[in-house]
Amino acid sequence: MSNFPITNKTEITRLPKRGVYDKDIIYSILDEALVCTVSFAIENQPFQIPTGFCRINDKLYIHGSVGSHYMREIQSKKLPVCISVTLIDGLVLARSAFHHSVNYRSVIIFSEPVSVTDPDELYQSLEVFTEKMCPGRWKDVRKPDAGEWKATMVMSFEIKEASAKVRTGPPKDDEDDYALDVWAGIQPLKIERLPVIPDPALKPGIELPSYLSS
Amino acid sequence: MSNFPITNKTEITRLPKRGVYDKDIIYSILDEALVCTVSFAIENQPFQIPTGFCRINDKLYIHGSVGSHYMREIQSKKLPVCISVTLIDGLVLARSAFHHSVNYRSVIIFSEPVSVTDPDELYQSLEVFTEKMCPGRWKDVRKPDAGEWKATMVMSFEIKEASAKVRTGPPKDDEDDYALDVWAGIQPLKIERLPVIPDPALKPGIELPSYLSS
Repeated sequence: MSNFPITNKTEITRLPKRGVYDKDIIYSILDEALVCTVSFAIENQPFQIPTGFCRINDKLYIHGSVGSHYMREIQSKKLPVCISVTLIDGLVLARSAFHHSVNYRSVIIFSEPVSVTDPDELYQSLEVFTEKMCPGRWKDVRKPDAGEWKATMVMSFEIKEASAKVRTGPPKDDEDDYALDVWAGIQPLKIERLPVIPDPALKPGIELPSYLSS
Repeated sequence: MSNFPITNKTEITRLPKRGVYDKDIIYSILDEALVCTVSFAIENQPFQIPTGFCRINDKLYIHGSVGSHYMREIQSKKLPVCISVTLIDGLVLARSAFHHSVNYRSVIIFSEPVSVTDPDELYQSLEVFTEKMCPGRWKDVRKPDAGEWKATMVMSFEIKEASAKVRTGPPKDDEDDYALDVWAGIQPLKIERLPVIPDPALKPGIELPSYLSS
């Protein structure tokens, strides 16, 4: 277990007991989340882009089209970015409206973009990204051709300034409220993978791969 | 049906066919999402806060503690904010790695904070927020007392500059790839409400309310 340093930007000042700087926990949250939100500012006007991502070692990767306006903007100007990820695990139903809460795991990262140009790193980032979305998928699909690589832009962000905020467990009510005749507890939430829907244009005779049927 | 005006900030330049400015669609996305991400910038350094929220008419509301550093910061300085919401509906499994995608509905709003001080508006915002998290809950719980109102800060954001981006449907592959022996389709994702977990400190004899048992 190793911790990220606590900086002015990553210190959890509100409810500090929920602050987490442990690298393993932060990385497990990043690896579970399918999307992140990238924010940057131009003349103090903030912008946000929700996007898929993956993590490899101490870097977070996002990719997009070379035609992406925001990717060109933050890369060419080396803009500082803030990246967030949020997983909602449940609703915390307290006896008082005031103590209602949410069980969540969120991560905030401060970093700056680096253009990925090394062919091996490019290939690995797309492979890990695809496998994160759908484990088993990469070996099955047609790999990018030269034209597709040319149309793809990948940026990496070193993860060196990061923190998480985590709430778990039952509601915490005011002492007197435990005597109230109000049901209290947790409503757990979970992202479920529902049965897959074949493409209407699917070539006849192609069976569902085993990594999608379980 | 009415549309938000397309501005420099809200125009969808990348894949413009996915851009949506229709108010009803944008509001339906906001009403379905449990959390949003609020971003702001200080000397061009972006920050992000994931937080619960609700919408009433043409305003988005967030609340927090009067001890919240970021809420005091954006309110006292009237900082411009960008607020985003993202719903992930499914993974788009194409025949080529390149055409893999995600079915999603996202909203971006540009606005600025207004401090909510009117008692009726404050009350309504907490009621709508609680009912959004858990329909039927508000009538059941102890309402905020004077001290709790004093500890709560509510901010509203007028929704007047907003856009959505939406992808639906099956994968779109390159013409030649439809002949490949690769399964293609959609892996739908859905946030499920799992069976509730009673608070271990629940007073004996309190039954699960009907709005939580269905």
